Amino acid sequence: MERLRLAVIGGTGPQGRSLAYRFAVAGHHVVIGSRVAERASRTAEEIQLRVPRSSVVGRTNNEAAADCPVVLLAVPYEGHADVVTSLRDCLVGKVVISCVNPLSVDKTGARAVRVPHGSAAEEAAALAPGADVIAAFHHLSAAKLWRDDESLAQEDVLVCGDSPTAKNLVMELASAVTGRPGVDAGPLRMAGVLESFTGVLININKRYKTRSGIAIVGLADRSRQGPGA
Amino acid sequence: MERLRLAVIGGTGPQGRSLAYRFAVAGHHVVIGSRVAERASRTAEEIQLRVPRSSVVGRTNNEAAADCPVVLLAVPYEGHADVVTSLRDCLVGKVVISCVNPLSVDKTGARAVRVPHGSAAEEAAALAPGADVIAAFHHLSAAKLWRDDESLAQEDVLVCGDSPTAKNLVMELASAVTGRPGVDAGPLRMAGVLESFTGVLININKRYKTRSGIAIVGLADRSRQGPGA
Repeated sequence: MERLRLAVIGGTGPQGRSLAYRFAVAGHHVVIGSRVAERASRTAEEIQLRVPRSSVVGRTNNEAAADCPVVLLAVPYEGHADVVTSLRDCLVGKVVISCVNPLSVDKTGARAVRVPHGSAAEEAAALAPGADVIAAFHHLSAAKLWRDDESLAQEDVLVCGDSPTAKNLVMELASAVTGRPGVDAGPLRMAGVLESFTGVLININKRYKTRSGIAIVGLADRSRQGPGA
Repeated sequence: MERLRLAVIGGTGPQGRSLAYRFAVAGHHVVIGSRVAERASRTAEEIQLRVPRSSVVGRTNNEAAADCPVVLLAVPYEGHADVVTSLRDCLVGKVVISCVNPLSVDKTGARAVRVPHGSAAEEAAALAPGADVIAAFHHLSAAKLWRDDESLAQEDVLVCGDSPTAKNLVMELASAVTGRPGVDAGPLRMAGVLESFTGVLININKRYKTRSGIAIVGLADRSRQGPGA
Protein backbone atom coordinates (compact mmCIF):
# COMPACT_ATOMS: atom_id res chain seq x y z
CA MET A 1 0.00 0.00 0.00
CA GLU A 2 1.05 3.62 -0.31
CA ARG A 3 3.09 5.11 2.51
CA LEU A 4 0.80 6.68 5.11
CA ARG A 5 1.33 9.49 7.58
CA LEU A 6 0.00 7.97 10.77
CA ALA A 7 -0.47 9.69 14.14
CA VAL A 8 -0.56 7.44 17.19
CA ILE A 9 -2.36 9.27 20.00
CA GLY A 10 -1.21 7.80 23.30
CA GLY A 11 1.78 6.47 21.42
CA THR A 12 3.94 6.04 24.51
CA GLY A 13 1.61 3.44 26.07
CA PRO A 14 2.13 -0.28 25.43
CA GLN A 15 -0.48 -0.75 22.68
CA GLY A 16 0.26 2.55 20.91
CA ARG A 17 4.02 2.16 21.06
CA SER A 18 3.87 -1.42 19.78
CA LEU A 19 1.56 -0.65 16.86
CA ALA A 20 3.70 2.39 16.01
CA TYR A 21 6.72 0.10 15.89
CA ARG A 22 5.00 -2.27 13.47
CA PHE A 23 3.77 0.58 11.28
CA ALA A 24 7.33 1.95 11.18
CA VAL A 25 8.68 -1.47 10.20
CA ALA A 26 6.14 -1.51 7.35
CA GLY A 27 7.53 1.79 6.05
CA HIS A 28 4.82 4.19 7.13
CA HIS A 29 5.67 7.65 8.48
CA VAL A 30 4.67 7.60 12.14
CA VAL A 31 4.07 10.56 14.43
CA ILE A 32 4.00 9.44 18.07
CA GLY A 33 1.66 11.62 20.12
CA SER A 34 1.74 12.15 23.87
CA ARG A 35 0.56 14.79 26.31
CA VAL A 36 4.22 15.71 26.75
CA ALA A 37 6.22 16.12 23.53
CA GLU A 38 9.48 14.99 25.16
CA ARG A 39 8.01 11.64 26.13
CA ALA A 40 6.74 11.16 22.57
CA SER A 41 10.19 12.00 21.22
CA ARG A 42 11.85 9.44 23.49
CA THR A 43 9.53 6.70 22.22
CA ALA A 44 10.08 7.84 18.63
CA GLU A 45 13.86 7.65 19.14
CA GLU A 46 13.56 4.20 20.65
CA ILE A 47 11.67 2.96 17.59
CA GLN A 48 14.02 4.77 15.22
CA LEU A 49 16.98 3.00 16.83
CA ARG A 50 15.32 -0.39 16.30
CA VAL A 51 14.23 0.40 12.73
CA PRO A 52 17.07 2.51 11.30
CA ARG A 53 15.53 3.44 7.97
CA SER A 54 12.14 4.30 9.46
CA SER A 55 10.56 7.70 9.78
CA VAL A 56 9.25 8.25 13.31
CA VAL A 57 8.94 11.52 15.21
CA GLY A 58 7.39 12.56 18.53
CA ARG A 59 4.94 15.44 19.03
CA THR A 60 2.15 16.47 21.37
CA ASN A 61 -1.10 14.62 20.73
CA ASN A 62 -2.57 17.73 19.12
CA GLU A 63 0.39 18.31 16.83
CA ALA A 64 0.42 14.64 15.85
CA ALA A 65 -3.28 14.59 14.99
CA ALA A 66 -3.06 17.87 13.08
CA ASP A 67 -0.12 16.56 11.05
CA CYS A 68 -1.59 13.25 9.80
CA PRO A 69 -4.57 12.13 7.69
CA VAL A 70 -4.80 8.84 9.62
CA VAL A 71 -5.01 8.99 13.42
CA LEU A 72 -4.88 5.97 15.74
CA LEU A 73 -6.43 6.46 19.17
CA ALA A 74 -4.48 4.26 21.60
CA VAL A 75 -5.31 5.92 24.89
CA PRO A 76 -6.72 4.29 28.04
CA TYR A 77 -10.51 4.52 28.22
CA GLU A 78 -10.16 6.69 31.32
CA GLY A 79 -9.69 10.13 29.80
CA HIS A 80 -10.68 8.95 26.32
CA ALA A 81 -13.58 11.40 26.00
CA ASP A 82 -11.38 14.33 27.07
CA VAL A 83 -8.64 13.43 24.60
CA VAL A 84 -11.07 13.08 21.68
CA THR A 85 -12.82 16.34 22.60
CA SER A 86 -9.49 18.17 22.69
CA LEU A 87 -8.59 16.81 19.24
CA ARG A 88 -11.97 17.19 17.57
CA ASP A 89 -11.10 20.14 15.35
CA CYS A 90 -8.10 18.37 13.82
CA LEU A 91 -9.98 15.08 13.25
CA VAL A 92 -12.48 16.45 10.73
CA GLY A 93 -12.21 14.60 7.42
CA LYS A 94 -9.72 12.10 8.78
CA VAL A 95 -9.62 8.36 9.24
CA VAL A 96 -9.63 7.80 13.00
CA ILE A 97 -8.79 4.27 14.16
CA SER A 98 -9.83 3.29 17.68
CA CYS A 99 -8.23 0.33 19.46
CA VAL A 100 -9.49 1.55 22.85
CA ASN A 101 -10.80 -1.15 25.22
CA PRO A 102 -13.20 0.00 27.96
CA LEU A 103 -12.43 -2.79 30.45
CA SER A 104 -11.63 -3.19 34.08
CA VAL A 105 -9.64 -6.15 35.36
CA ASP A 106 -9.63 -7.56 38.88
CA LYS A 107 -8.61 -10.90 40.36
CA THR A 108 -11.77 -12.59 39.03
CA GLY A 109 -10.92 -11.54 35.48
CA ALA A 110 -11.95 -8.86 33.03
CA ARG A 111 -15.20 -6.93 33.10
CA ALA A 112 -16.66 -4.68 30.42
CA VAL A 113 -17.05 -1.04 31.45
CA ARG A 114 -20.42 0.41 30.51
CA VAL A 115 -20.02 3.05 27.81
CA PRO A 116 -22.95 5.42 27.25
CA HIS A 117 -22.43 5.40 23.46
CA GLY A 118 -22.15 1.61 23.32
CA SER A 119 -18.42 1.52 22.65
CA ALA A 120 -15.35 3.72 22.86
CA ALA A 121 -15.28 3.90 19.06
CA GLU A 122 -18.87 5.14 18.89
CA GLU A 123 -18.06 7.63 21.63
CA ALA A 124 -15.20 8.93 19.49
CA ALA A 125 -17.53 9.18 16.50
CA ALA A 126 -20.03 11.16 18.57
CA LEU A 127 -17.38 13.50 19.98
CA ALA A 128 -15.54 14.05 16.69
CA PRO A 129 -18.19 14.70 14.03
CA GLY A 130 -16.73 14.65 10.54
CA ALA A 131 -14.19 11.97 11.37
CA ASP A 132 -14.49 8.48 9.83
CA VAL A 133 -14.06 6.33 12.93
CA ILE A 134 -12.99 2.73 12.43
CA ALA A 135 -12.59 0.19 15.25
CA ALA A 136 -9.60 -2.16 14.83
CA PHE A 137 -6.40 -3.56 16.38
CA HIS A 138 -7.96 -4.46 19.76
CA HIS A 139 -6.78 -8.04 20.00
CA LEU A 140 -3.07 -8.04 19.18
CA SER A 141 -0.91 -8.45 22.27
CA ALA A 142 1.23 -5.36 22.84
CA ALA A 143 4.07 -7.54 24.11
CA LYS A 144 4.00 -9.68 20.97
CA LEU A 145 3.81 -6.62 18.73
CA TRP A 146 6.81 -5.05 20.42
CA ARG A 147 9.05 -8.10 20.08
CA ASP A 148 10.72 -9.02 16.82
CA ASP A 149 10.74 -12.74 17.32
CA GLU A 150 7.05 -13.30 17.80
CA SER A 151 4.94 -14.05 14.78
CA LEU A 152 1.50 -12.57 14.52
CA ALA A 153 0.89 -14.33 11.25
CA GLN A 154 -1.84 -16.60 12.65
CA GLU A 155 -3.90 -13.70 14.03
CA ASP A 156 -6.64 -11.59 12.55
CA VAL A 157 -7.46 -7.92 12.92
CA LEU A 158 -11.23 -7.41 13.06
CA VAL A 159 -12.42 -4.10 11.62
CA CYS A 160 -15.76 -2.33 12.17
CA GLY A 161 -16.87 0.93 10.63
CA ASP A 162 -19.43 2.75 8.54
CA SER A 163 -17.21 4.34 5.87
CA PRO A 164 -16.26 1.73 3.24
CA THR A 165 -13.26 3.76 2.07
CA ALA A 166 -11.86 4.26 5.55
CA LYS A 167 -12.56 0.65 6.45
CA ASN A 168 -10.72 -0.63 3.39
CA LEU A 169 -7.72 1.53 4.25
CA VAL A 170 -7.59 0.12 7.80
CA MET A 171 -8.06 -3.44 6.54
CA GLU A 172 -5.11 -2.91 4.25
CA LEU A 173 -3.08 -1.32 7.05
CA ALA A 174 -3.60 -4.49 9.11
CA SER A 175 -1.48 -6.35 6.56
CA ALA A 176 1.47 -4.33 7.79
CA VAL A 177 1.14 -6.09 11.13
CA THR A 178 -0.20 -9.60 10.49
CA GLY A 179 0.63 -10.15 6.85
CA ARG A 180 -2.98 -10.41 5.76
CA PRO A 181 -5.76 -7.85 5.43
CA GLY A 182 -8.03 -7.12 8.34
CA VAL A 183 -11.43 -8.81 8.42
CA ASP A 184 -14.53 -6.70 7.80
CA ALA A 185 -16.65 -7.39 10.89
CA GLY A 186 -19.52 -5.04 10.08
CA PRO A 187 -20.76 -1.56 10.95
CA LEU A 188 -19.43 0.64 13.75
CA ARG A 189 -22.32 -0.39 15.99
CA MET A 190 -20.52 -3.75 16.42
CA ALA A 191 -17.38 -2.07 17.82
CA GLY A 192 -18.44 -2.81 21.39
CA VAL A 193 -18.25 -6.53 20.63
CA LEU A 194 -14.63 -6.18 19.53
CA GLU A 195 -13.79 -4.06 22.56
CA SER A 196 -15.35 -6.41 25.08
CA PHE A 197 -13.85 -9.47 23.38
CA THR A 198 -10.48 -8.19 24.57
CA GLY A 199 -11.73 -9.12 28.04
CA VAL A 200 -12.21 -12.72 26.91
CA LEU A 201 -8.61 -12.77 25.68
CA ILE A 202 -7.41 -11.30 28.99
CA ASN A 203 -9.22 -14.10 30.83
CA ILE A 204 -7.72 -16.71 28.52
CA ASN A 205 -4.24 -15.22 29.02
CA LYS A 206 -4.64 -15.45 32.79
CA ARG A 207 -6.08 -18.98 32.75
CA TYR A 208 -3.59 -20.46 30.28
CA LYS A 209 -0.60 -18.22 31.04
CA THR A 210 -0.22 -17.18 27.42
CA ARG A 211 -0.69 -14.22 25.10
CA SER A 212 -3.69 -15.22 23.07
CA GLY A 213 -5.11 -13.81 19.89
CA ILE A 214 -8.01 -14.44 17.59
CA ALA A 215 -8.25 -16.00 14.15
CA ILE A 216 -11.31 -16.23 11.94
CA VAL A 217 -11.73 -19.68 10.42
CA GLY A 218 -13.36 -20.11 7.02
CA LEU A 219 -11.83 -17.21 5.06
CA ALA A 220 -9.70 -19.28 2.72
CA ASP A 221 -9.29 -16.77 -0.06
CA ARG A 222 -7.47 -13.98 1.70
CA SER A 223 -3.96 -13.36 0.49
CA ARG A 224 -1.26 -13.97 3.05
CA GLN A 225 2.00 -12.11 2.71
CA GLY A 226 4.84 -11.86 5.15
CA PRO A 227 4.31 -9.18 7.83
CA GLY A 228 5.53 -5.83 6.63
CA ALA A 229 5.29 -6.85 2.97
CA MET B 1 -15.23 -38.90 28.60
CA GLU B 2 -18.02 -40.88 30.20
CA ARG B 3 -21.26 -41.21 28.28
CA LEU B 4 -23.62 -38.37 29.15
CA ARG B 5 -27.40 -38.13 29.13
CA LEU B 6 -27.94 -34.85 27.33
CA ALA B 7 -31.23 -33.02 26.80
CA VAL B 8 -31.35 -30.57 23.91
CA ILE B 9 -34.15 -28.06 24.55
CA GLY B 10 -35.25 -26.64 21.23
CA GLY B 11 -33.62 -29.67 19.63
CA THR B 12 -35.58 -29.41 16.39
CA GLY B 13 -34.11 -26.01 15.48
CA PRO B 14 -30.95 -25.75 13.36
CA GLN B 15 -28.41 -25.21 16.18
CA GLY B 16 -30.01 -27.71 18.58
CA ARG B 17 -30.49 -30.40 15.97
CA SER B 18 -26.93 -30.05 14.69
CA LEU B 19 -25.31 -30.16 18.12
CA ALA B 20 -27.54 -33.14 19.03
CA TYR B 21 -26.25 -34.90 15.93
CA ARG B 22 -22.63 -34.31 16.92
CA PHE B 23 -23.25 -35.43 20.51
CA ALA B 24 -24.90 -38.61 19.18
CA VAL B 25 -21.91 -39.26 16.90
CA ALA B 26 -19.68 -38.95 19.96
CA GLY B 27 -21.67 -41.67 21.72
CA HIS B 28 -23.70 -39.61 24.18
CA HIS B 29 -27.33 -40.46 24.92
CA VAL B 30 -29.35 -37.55 23.53
CA VAL B 31 -32.91 -36.57 24.36
CA ILE B 32 -34.28 -34.12 21.80
CA GLY B 33 -36.77 -31.73 23.38
CA SER B 34 -39.48 -29.79 21.60
CA ARG B 35 -42.78 -28.17 22.53
CA VAL B 36 -44.45 -30.99 20.58
CA ALA B 37 -43.17 -34.51 21.33
CA GLU B 38 -43.91 -35.75 17.81
CA ARG B 39 -41.65 -33.14 16.26
CA ALA B 40 -38.87 -34.10 18.67
CA SER B 41 -39.32 -37.75 17.77
CA ARG B 42 -39.04 -37.00 14.05
CA THR B 43 -35.72 -35.20 14.58
CA ALA B 44 -34.51 -38.03 16.83
CA GLU B 45 -35.37 -40.58 14.14
CA GLU B 46 -33.58 -38.51 11.52
CA ILE B 47 -30.41 -38.50 13.62
CA GLN B 48 -30.79 -42.17 14.49
CA LEU B 49 -30.96 -43.02 10.78
CA ARG B 50 -27.72 -41.12 10.15
CA VAL B 51 -25.93 -42.56 13.20
CA PRO B 52 -27.22 -46.14 13.44
CA ARG B 53 -25.62 -47.15 16.72
CA SER B 54 -26.55 -43.92 18.50
CA SER B 55 -29.08 -43.47 21.25
CA VAL B 56 -31.42 -40.58 20.46
CA VAL B 57 -35.04 -40.13 21.51
CA GLY B 58 -37.58 -37.32 21.25
CA ARG B 59 -39.65 -35.93 24.15
CA THR B 60 -41.36 -32.72 25.19
CA ASN B 61 -38.94 -30.07 26.48
CA ASN B 62 -40.09 -30.73 30.05
CA GLU B 63 -39.66 -34.49 29.79
CA ALA B 64 -36.26 -34.08 28.18
CA ALA B 65 -35.01 -31.72 30.90
CA ALA B 66 -36.40 -33.91 33.68
CA ASP B 67 -34.69 -36.96 32.23
CA CYS B 68 -31.11 -35.66 31.89
CA PRO B 69 -28.39 -34.26 34.21
CA VAL B 70 -27.01 -32.07 31.41
CA VAL B 71 -29.41 -29.75 29.58
CA LEU B 72 -28.54 -27.68 26.51
CA LEU B 73 -30.73 -24.64 25.88
CA ALA B 74 -30.86 -24.14 22.10
CA VAL B 75 -34.01 -22.04 21.79
CA PRO B 76 -34.42 -18.69 20.02
CA TYR B 77 -34.00 -15.74 22.37
CA GLU B 78 -37.64 -14.81 21.76
CA GLY B 79 -39.44 -17.00 24.24
CA HIS B 80 -36.23 -17.94 26.07
CA ALA B 81 -37.37 -16.56 29.42
CA ASP B 82 -40.69 -18.43 29.19
CA VAL B 83 -38.99 -21.72 28.32
CA VAL B 84 -36.49 -21.46 31.18
CA THR B 85 -39.23 -20.48 33.63
CA SER B 86 -41.32 -23.48 32.61
CA LEU B 87 -38.32 -25.79 33.15
CA ARG B 88 -36.98 -24.25 36.34
CA ASP B 89 -38.05 -27.05 38.70
CA CYS B 90 -36.31 -29.74 36.68
CA LEU B 91 -33.09 -27.72 36.22
CA VAL B 92 -32.12 -27.62 39.90
CA GLY B 93 -28.74 -29.24 40.48
CA LYS B 94 -28.10 -29.68 36.76
CA VAL B 95 -25.53 -28.45 34.30
CA VAL B 96 -27.39 -26.10 31.95
CA ILE B 97 -25.54 -25.12 28.78
CA SER B 98 -26.74 -22.01 26.95
CA CYS B 99 -25.84 -21.40 23.29
CA VAL B 100 -28.62 -18.81 22.94
CA ASN B 101 -27.76 -15.70 20.91
CA PRO B 102 -29.87 -12.58 21.54
CA LEU B 103 -29.40 -10.98 18.14
CA SER B 104 -31.46 -9.39 15.44
CA VAL B 105 -30.33 -9.36 11.84
CA ASP B 106 -31.41 -6.96 9.12
CA LYS B 107 -29.95 -5.98 5.77
CA THR B 108 -27.24 -3.86 7.43
CA GLY B 109 -26.03 -6.85 9.42
CA ALA B 110 -26.39 -8.19 12.94
CA ARG B 111 -27.33 -6.18 16.00
CA ALA B 112 -27.14 -7.21 19.65
CA VAL B 113 -30.50 -7.31 21.42
CA ARG B 114 -30.41 -5.66 24.84
CA VAL B 115 -30.88 -8.26 27.57
CA PRO B 116 -31.81 -7.00 31.04
CA HIS B 117 -29.58 -9.58 32.77
CA GLY B 118 -26.63 -8.81 30.49
CA SER B 119 -26.84 -12.06 28.51
CA ALA B 120 -29.22 -14.91 27.78
CA ALA B 121 -27.04 -17.20 29.88
CA GLU B 122 -27.23 -14.87 32.90
CA GLU B 123 -30.98 -14.61 32.36
CA ALA B 124 -31.20 -18.41 32.51
CA ALA B 125 -29.13 -18.41 35.71
CA ALA B 126 -31.45 -15.83 37.26
CA LEU B 127 -34.61 -17.69 36.22
CA ALA B 128 -33.36 -21.16 37.20
CA PRO B 129 -31.74 -20.84 40.62
CA GLY B 130 -29.83 -23.96 41.60
CA ALA B 131 -28.74 -24.71 38.04
CA ASP B 132 -25.08 -24.40 37.04
CA VAL B 133 -25.39 -22.35 33.86
CA ILE B 134 -22.51 -22.47 31.39
CA ALA B 135 -22.36 -20.45 28.16
CA ALA B 136 -20.85 -22.33 25.21
CA PHE B 137 -21.32 -23.51 21.60
CA HIS B 138 -22.40 -20.11 20.22
CA HIS B 139 -20.01 -19.91 17.29
CA LEU B 140 -20.19 -23.22 15.45
CA SER B 141 -22.15 -23.00 12.21
CA ALA B 142 -25.28 -25.17 12.38
CA ALA B 143 -24.90 -26.01 8.71
CA LYS B 144 -21.33 -27.19 9.21
CA LEU B 145 -22.27 -29.17 12.31
CA TRP B 146 -25.06 -30.94 10.45
CA ARG B 147 -22.92 -32.02 7.51
CA ASP B 148 -20.52 -34.93 7.71
CA ASP B 149 -17.95 -33.64 5.31
CA GLU B 150 -17.15 -30.37 6.99
CA SER B 151 -14.35 -30.29 9.46
CA LEU B 152 -14.71 -28.18 12.57
CA ALA B 153 -11.23 -29.13 13.71
CA GLN B 154 -9.85 -25.60 13.31
CA GLU B 155 -12.53 -24.02 15.48
CA ASP B 156 -12.73 -23.33 19.19
CA VAL B 157 -15.64 -23.50 21.60
CA LEU B 158 -15.43 -20.67 24.13
CA VAL B 159 -16.88 -21.50 27.54
CA CYS B 160 -17.95 -19.08 30.30
CA GLY B 161 -19.31 -20.04 33.71
CA ASP B 162 -18.96 -19.76 37.44
CA SER B 163 -18.96 -23.45 38.45
CA PRO B 164 -15.51 -24.98 37.77
CA THR B 165 -16.92 -28.53 37.75
CA ALA B 166 -19.69 -27.73 35.30
CA LYS B 167 -17.34 -25.67 33.16
CA ASN B 168 -14.83 -28.51 32.95
CA LEU B 169 -17.56 -30.91 31.88
CA VAL B 170 -18.67 -28.57 29.08
CA MET B 171 -15.08 -27.94 27.99
CA GLU B 172 -14.63 -31.71 27.73
CA LEU B 173 -17.94 -32.06 25.89
CA ALA B 174 -16.65 -29.60 23.27
CA SER B 175 -14.06 -32.20 22.28
CA ALA B 176 -16.91 -34.31 20.98
CA VAL B 177 -17.53 -31.64 18.36
CA THR B 178 -14.19 -30.01 17.51
CA GLY B 179 -11.69 -32.62 18.66
CA ARG B 180 -10.17 -30.41 21.31
CA PRO B 181 -11.42 -29.17 24.65
CA GLY B 182 -13.34 -25.92 24.91
CA VAL B 183 -11.47 -22.80 25.95
CA ASP B 184 -12.14 -21.36 29.40
CA ALA B 185 -13.12 -17.76 28.62
CA GLY B 186 -13.88 -16.67 32.18
CA PRO B 187 -16.87 -16.16 34.48
CA LEU B 188 -20.51 -16.19 33.41
CA ARG B 189 -20.57 -12.38 33.40
CA MET B 190 -18.59 -12.59 30.10
CA ALA B 191 -21.31 -14.67 28.41
CA GLY B 192 -22.73 -11.58 26.69
CA VAL B 193 -19.44 -11.14 24.86
CA LEU B 194 -19.70 -14.66 23.41
CA GLU B 195 -23.34 -14.13 22.47
CA SER B 196 -22.78 -10.82 20.73
CA PHE B 197 -19.68 -12.13 18.98
CA THR B 198 -22.00 -14.39 17.00
CA GLY B 199 -23.19 -11.17 15.35
CA VAL B 200 -19.64 -10.46 14.18
CA LEU B 201 -19.50 -13.93 12.61
CA ILE B 202 -22.88 -13.34 10.93
CA ASN B 203 -21.52 -10.11 9.45
CA ILE B 204 -18.38 -11.88 8.26
CA ASN B 205 -20.47 -14.67 6.70
CA LYS B 206 -22.51 -12.13 4.81
CA ARG B 207 -19.52 -10.08 3.67
CA TYR B 208 -17.32 -13.01 2.61
CA LYS B 209 -20.08 -15.49 1.65
CA THR B 210 -18.74 -18.15 4.00
CA ARG B 211 -19.51 -19.93 7.26
CA SER B 212 -16.94 -18.52 9.59
CA GLY B 213 -15.81 -19.67 12.99
CA ILE B 214 -13.38 -18.59 15.65
CA ALA B 215 -10.03 -19.97 16.75
CA ILE B 216 -7.95 -18.82 19.69
CA VAL B 217 -4.28 -18.42 18.78
CA GLY B 218 -1.57 -19.03 21.36
CA LEU B 219 -2.88 -22.13 23.15
CA ALA B 220 -0.28 -24.57 21.92
CA ASP B 221 -0.54 -27.17 24.65
CA ARG B 222 -4.10 -28.35 24.22
CA SER B 223 -4.51 -31.91 23.06
CA ARG B 224 -6.14 -32.31 19.69
CA GLN B 225 -7.92 -35.53 18.91
CA GLY B 226 -10.16 -36.36 16.00
CA PRO B 227 -13.75 -35.12 16.40
CA GLY B 228 -15.83 -37.65 18.22
CA ALA B 229 -12.79 -39.31 19.78
